[in-house]
Amino acid sequence: MKKVILASTSTLYGGGYLDYLLPTLKKHFENVKTLLFIPYARPSGISHDDYTSKVSHAFSKINIAVKGLHEFDNPIKAIEETQAIFTGGGNTFLLVSQLYNFNLIDALKKAINNGTPYLGCSAGSNIGGKTMNTTNDMPIVLPKSFDTLGFINFNLNPHYLDPIEGSTHMGETRETRINEFHKLSSIPVLGLREGSWLEAYGDNVIVRGELTARLFRQNEFPVEIAPGENLNFL
Amino acid sequence: MKKVILASTSTLYGGGYLDYLLPTLKKHFENVKTLLFIPYARPSGISHDDYTSKVSHAFSKINIAVKGLHEFDNPIKAIEETQAIFTGGGNTFLLVSQLYNFNLIDALKKAINNGTPYLGCSAGSNIGGKTMNTTNDMPIVLPKSFDTLGFINFNLNPHYLDPIEGSTHMGETRETRINEFHKLSSIPVLGLREGSWLEAYGDNVIVRGELTARLFRQNEFPVEIAPGENLNFL
Repeated sequence: MKKVILASTSTLYGGGYLDYLLPTLKKHFENVKTLLFIPYARPSGISHDDYTSKVSHAFSKINIAVKGLHEFDNPIKAIEETQAIFTGGGNTFLLVSQLYNFNLIDALKKAINNGTPYLGCSAGSNIGGKTMNTTNDMPIVLPKSFDTLGFINFNLNPHYLDPIEGSTHMGETRETRINEFHKLSSIPVLGLREGSWLEAYGDNVIVRGELTARLFRQNEFPVEIAPGENLNFL
Repeated sequence: MKKVILASTSTLYGGGYLDYLLPTLKKHFENVKTLLFIPYARPSGISHDDYTSKVSHAFSKINIAVKGLHEFDNPIKAIEETQAIFTGGGNTFLLVSQLYNFNLIDALKKAINNGTPYLGCSAGSNIGGKTMNTTNDMPIVLPKSFDTLGFINFNLNPHYLDPIEGSTHMGETRETRINEFHKLSSIPVLGLREGSWLEAYGDNVIVRGELTARLFRQNEFPVEIAPGENLNFL
């Protein structure tokens, strides 16, 4: 059975890296001894080694060892053989470019759809959607395609931000940008606020955390989806 | 002589469309009777006709007639023959996709480098830089390339926002994103705050408006550039 968690963010304000998710991950990664980490999104340009160390430290708290995907000569084989996979946040354009450059898209889809438990945070969650068209990141590199892994039947907008009341800034709000996407595409988009995550187990897609998530569909008014609701109707 | 104005935004908070720029545009477009408008960026998904009407209304205040590029059967010929060009804001990915789809990049470069006066706002300014890698927009469509018109020897980040003090949001700041770009590229990036514009006449590139602009260079601390300073050293 597919076991996927897609989180809006890795870190809550004032908390440590992955701290708020650890109780959930302990269950999600039950019986996992070693996890494969995909460091390609490089937040703030951090090196693959440094990023993997940071992740290693967090997972040591639930007794899981971490290996970086960049450490393997044959990354496809590493994906096929691992017990679990985590893709960290950073820049989605860089992440997706590298997944295409190393020809990893099909291997990831196959392993994870066949039951290798997966965790994504931020950019690592974006790639769990159908396409990366609704990332917030800066296009620092041009990927071959915007198509991503499609573990859910819609797209995500992580770190979702409500319009700021009284703002005098004339740049587009998040909602305006998502509406622009819906002039071109009918793929639904879920705005996932910080502290929220999706639990996609088998065919169910449950909203988790304490906040509602905002669902945008083409030609419809956006609606709020409460924690515990199932998005398997999309 | 090349005569290019690249503005951070079309509209200041509380003001009308292009209002704050009209005194500047009156001089910039001296002797221009008809202007060609490129509506492809479609802010909020507005139609090409509606966008062109809005622009027409603003330019009527300085006695310039406006035709939308979408009205021409031969857009390359329209670019070659027009007295002036304006590209409006919206989504930079959509704008650049359309410029490549209609094969307009070379025609625009040629006309504007040969002296056809140009105005860009927001997305229309982004394309005046070397690449669109530092846009803030959402990647709602995949362009063939991120290379743009290169009227200046660096990139822009329009609607530049300083980090918000005391923010608890864990998404990347604008500065963090630009630093991520500089892990991959040595192209300088100018953060242009709302109300600022660049005047690129011949080889000079002068910062205009009342605010400083923030210049980011690879492996250097960012610096503030005062209005009136010339960026021709880049």
